[in-house]
Amino acid sequence: MVENQDQGPYYQINDTKNPDLLHERRSATFDIELLTQFMFGGPNSYFNINKRRQLTRLAYAHPIHKTHLPLEYLDADEFYALLIRKSFVAIKEAERLNITDRKFLGWFLSVFTNGRFIFGLHTSMFLHTLENMASDEQQEKFLPLARSFQIIGTYAQTELGHGSNVQRLETEAVFDSKTDTFVLNTPTLTATKFWPGALGRSTNYVLLMAQLYTPDRSHPCGLQMFFVQIRDLNTHEPLPGVEVGEISTRFAHEVGDNGYLRLTNVRIPRNQMLMKLAYVDEQGTFHRLGDPRLLYGAMLATRVNLCAFFSILLARAVTIAMRYSAVRRQGQNPDGKETLILDYPLQQEKLVPCLAATYAFFYSFIKLEHFRASILDGDTILFELLPELHAISSGLKAYTSTHGERWSQICRVACGGHGFLVASGIKGINNMLDAGCSYEGDNAVLYQQTARFLLKVIQQLDENTDTNPDSSIAFLYSNKVAPATVVNLDDYCRLFEARSELLLKSMSTRLSELSSSSSTPYSVFSKNSIELVHVAKAYVETFVLRAFYDGVRKASEHKELAVVFEQLFHVFAIDTLRNSAADFIRLKLLTPDQIYHLETYGLPDMYARLRPNLIALVDAFDFHDNELNSCLGRYDGQAYEALMERARLNPANRYKVHPVWTSIKQNAKSKL
Amino acid sequence: MVENQDQGPYYQINDTKNPDLLHERRSATFDIELLTQFMFGGPNSYFNINKRRQLTRLAYAHPIHKTHLPLEYLDADEFYALLIRKSFVAIKEAERLNITDRKFLGWFLSVFTNGRFIFGLHTSMFLHTLENMASDEQQEKFLPLARSFQIIGTYAQTELGHGSNVQRLETEAVFDSKTDTFVLNTPTLTATKFWPGALGRSTNYVLLMAQLYTPDRSHPCGLQMFFVQIRDLNTHEPLPGVEVGEISTRFAHEVGDNGYLRLTNVRIPRNQMLMKLAYVDEQGTFHRLGDPRLLYGAMLATRVNLCAFFSILLARAVTIAMRYSAVRRQGQNPDGKETLILDYPLQQEKLVPCLAATYAFFYSFIKLEHFRASILDGDTILFELLPELHAISSGLKAYTSTHGERWSQICRVACGGHGFLVASGIKGINNMLDAGCSYEGDNAVLYQQTARFLLKVIQQLDENTDTNPDSSIAFLYSNKVAPATVVNLDDYCRLFEARSELLLKSMSTRLSELSSSSSTPYSVFSKNSIELVHVAKAYVETFVLRAFYDGVRKASEHKELAVVFEQLFHVFAIDTLRNSAADFIRLKLLTPDQIYHLETYGLPDMYARLRPNLIALVDAFDFHDNELNSCLGRYDGQAYEALMERARLNPANRYKVHPVWTSIKQNAKSKL
Repeated sequence: MVENQDQGPYYQINDTKNPDLLHERRSATFDIELLTQFMFGGPNSYFNINKRRQLTRLAYAHPIHKTHLPLEYLDADEFYALLIRKSFVAIKEAERLNITDRKFLGWFLSVFTNGRFIFGLHTSMFLHTLENMASDEQQEKFLPLARSFQIIGTYAQTELGHGSNVQRLETEAVFDSKTDTFVLNTPTLTATKFWPGALGRSTNYVLLMAQLYTPDRSHPCGLQMFFVQIRDLNTHEPLPGVEVGEISTRFAHEVGDNGYLRLTNVRIPRNQMLMKLAYVDEQGTFHRLGDPRLLYGAMLATRVNLCAFFSILLARAVTIAMRYSAVRRQGQNPDGKETLILDYPLQQEKLVPCLAATYAFFYSFIKLEHFRASILDGDTILFELLPELHAISSGLKAYTSTHGERWSQICRVACGGHGFLVASGIKGINNMLDAGCSYEGDNAVLYQQTARFLLKVIQQLDENTDTNPDSSIAFLYSNKVAPATVVNLDDYCRLFEARSELLLKSMSTRLSELSSSSSTPYSVFSKNSIELVHVAKAYVETFVLRAFYDGVRKASEHKELAVVFEQLFHVFAIDTLRNSAADFIRLKLLTPDQIYHLETYGLPDMYARLRPNLIALVDAFDFHDNELNSCLGRYDGQAYEALMERARLNPANRYKVHPVWTSIKQNAKSKL
Repeated sequence: MVENQDQGPYYQINDTKNPDLLHERRSATFDIELLTQFMFGGPNSYFNINKRRQLTRLAYAHPIHKTHLPLEYLDADEFYALLIRKSFVAIKEAERLNITDRKFLGWFLSVFTNGRFIFGLHTSMFLHTLENMASDEQQEKFLPLARSFQIIGTYAQTELGHGSNVQRLETEAVFDSKTDTFVLNTPTLTATKFWPGALGRSTNYVLLMAQLYTPDRSHPCGLQMFFVQIRDLNTHEPLPGVEVGEISTRFAHEVGDNGYLRLTNVRIPRNQMLMKLAYVDEQGTFHRLGDPRLLYGAMLATRVNLCAFFSILLARAVTIAMRYSAVRRQGQNPDGKETLILDYPLQQEKLVPCLAATYAFFYSFIKLEHFRASILDGDTILFELLPELHAISSGLKAYTSTHGERWSQICRVACGGHGFLVASGIKGINNMLDAGCSYEGDNAVLYQQTARFLLKVIQQLDENTDTNPDSSIAFLYSNKVAPATVVNLDDYCRLFEARSELLLKSMSTRLSELSSSSSTPYSVFSKNSIELVHVAKAYVETFVLRAFYDGVRKASEHKELAVVFEQLFHVFAIDTLRNSAADFIRLKLLTPDQIYHLETYGLPDMYARLRPNLIALVDAFDFHDNELNSCLGRYDGQAYEALMERARLNPANRYKVHPVWTSIKQNAKSKL
């Protein structure tokens, strides 16, 4: 059934109703669909846009989407009920349509629920963890129930008092050999599980991360994962000993049903500790099995996928802001006509670097995903490359969320006041990216992980000269001299690599001097953590630049694309460079005048060259209007019409006079 | 009655329940109340904190505050009804307490309504405009009704299609001499009034900005202000010809009742055009009266006040983040104890510059307000200084909102995931500051106003050498040589001033070269707008730095404060400097190594020195817990307890099983 759906773009140029936007689309110098296919097309692409278009069309065709007001107008109960209903309908529809491939299924469920599939942690972390940490026997028992949604679970790790420092989680599982059970407890206030998605009111099981004590309380065995029922499968009521509820209101994930959970003497059978990598026998003896690094796989895949997610979010924000800027006119011109705001250099200064960064994000993700796939292919894991994957995926997750948050905020500002409406779609994206700076690893912590890896590499530099030239650290082995000026695009890459190398080497020297003094390695690292993060960022920037450069080289197959890609690359490189200008100057890689020239003449020159293609470059991301959910960013350019229509839909306007005023007026009368 | 209330701080050190936070407070090297009084105390201070404490205590003592759930748990209708009720109760309470001073009244109404006084535009812009633009006769008629809240109005300027470009507003007022009325119309979709606060459901009058046509349609006379009734005073129903409602949901001002308004052939008597500065006679002839610059006064005062508002918002954000950082422990230490997150250099790198910036914001505002008061004192206006006030207030509004948004976002990240809860208080502050980047003048537009002023100044530099040494542009006349290195604090100021001067002069030279070519002045300005904004920012930074420096000098009266102020000043100056390092190096004011040294050694050194006083420095802002409305930033440090309590209050948890699940379970059963 899926196969019969249209694989073409959602819109055609003739769907444009706003004349300014139509003019923009007609002036593009390349074929938009060519670019879309080049970047996102085909089954070999992670994005597989043709398949995605089919699935998206199927999802939005369902009549349920016409049964409700825009989501911002629902109250908390309606919102939650709708998302639960949509989530179950989505599951049924996917079954009916026989969408079985896990990636396609994930897309379909997400699109169907407006990006808010309530059981997203069930289909990702919960299932993955069962598949990777449960013993064969456990998998046989639990997986069919979980896959058919009879058991719906979430992943309960974070506690009120501990996020980054997983080792210090406080939830306890104490083995009781008499009954062959674990006794689960939340011993303190801060041990309360806090934040897990869908936990508050939706899931009936959790995978509980807890400190294991066995054979008795006096023997801590570290963190283990437990498969714990929390609600009755028939009545959906919390089980005895379980206090569960939703935490207070969030700015993003507003309907994610993030929950809290407190357990009091909840008992589970011994075979509900996940036992693939460790097990407890009847006597309560703890045994380790297998390589715990196997667990990394799922965690790393999640982190890599986040980089794609953040890139898509940013692409949405820039699509909205760019299109709106080609619709809105503002300003007094001498000729009496108002200027399209996209024609203002200050607006271009906001949005063009952001657009270029979006392309850089996508190519970084593509390079990262390619690297991940080469290391973690099914059951084979190249363990020796895991540290590098860990380092670059940590760094890139931090980089894309931090910069994505920043860029999307600039997009918000570029849309003026209207950008502050929920209906603009922008501020919501900004909130999602902001949240991304904290979840799945605080960015400051992640950058430090990257720095630790780099320090190890640099210390072993002499030992290992036989490095893969495609590696993210190959430049450390190359002994190439940095170019004195920028002639070719590759010169930017080499300048960034030279900077990264110099920063890393001087940091390494400093640390080894310090560590020979009386300080502990911990305190040396801690005291230099600000600079270490700086070193990590510099390395991530080399990766991003190199990845984007690979994209530009690939684009050389298509002449019309190649020109535009080179311009975008210039913009991204100069913008990134100027933000670290002090480094390049201090390290004598470039002079202040060179950088000034690039910034003051190079950038605006590129803005002007890219100007005719700015709309085409966002159209190429090919978002469905429902995905953007934005009055400002609609494909047809009817921003004002949409804003007015959305305002009129506000349930606040269902009263001619709000009841509070009726009562105030009556009160006033009765006092007369 | 007000006089009898306690003027002392809201809390004492012994109110602290968290031991870590208590330890912080005990290690401060200065007396907190001394600092509070020094910065904010006394009737001569704009902040007049002693009076504010009295008013705040009175406002929070009212029993209405105990009648509702935390605001994030109310649905849209409940939220609106509560805020309307609280607003009216606040007005009555103020009357009862005989709070008549306008500033004190404003504070009281705002505090009473949790910063959400619904008629804020009525008591500010609406009344101010009537007082400044209405004729004496009109004032006599309208003001008593407005002051007693029988008429409640708002200020309807912004339209769907026009914000910054006020001149192009489209709403029309056409004079009809037969009936001696103006006929008001919204001729297009984009002419719809959009955004005015309290317009949607609350106000019964508006001051309508419209294009005047008189004596007939073919004679446009520009924008005028009209006093227009939109709702029936008895029934509160919209009048005939009036379509009014709330616009769609916002991220900030969520209960501001921002509205839209469309008028169709609404007639008002001729004497409802505000006629102090212009009037229309019976024949429809248009006459100008008086100096339109008189209008500036209110607009400039509003803008100046915004700088105070943004400073207070930022002070709240940093208070929350700093206190939470002195409560939360996280991380694996070799000694087995977890680290207080405030002890991490990376956390200090986030929060200490933010704290220093907050102090800089306050002193900038104080200097600006002092300048404003010296120019606009009652009815006397020093017209010749208005352009400078316009320039610096525009620039500082843009600076404080942009940087405030950025810093508050960093505070959010510094609080980790919990910072994302509405109950953290932080993200809401961030949203308010973000909104501030767009309202009352888009920041990019405002910076350009500042730049225009500077260009005029620099072109007239030779003509006028007799400048007030306290002026914000005095440094342009001083001919002082910039210091080669930083020895005294004043050296930072002089370095920034030298940079500003050099940037401005080179820009001026470039522009005059260009303008002698064939380009129009408009296109020259537009093409160079990115750099002009840069020049404007550099000037604002000199102002901020100089203002903070004035504060530091004043603090020298108190030895224990002086030390800390100097440390904060160092942090602010170095942090600001490093963000424009490329300028200082290119202009040969400092070498790359000097800046590197300041950043890499100077900053962390100051962080360490300031470390014992970080909590005292936020405590000195003396916010009431209700003002912060933050689980993380409570004075007593009970962050986790508060988070848990707030979660349990979530109305989502009033059901053991949410109704949607009951229906799903019943459905499932009926299918069996």
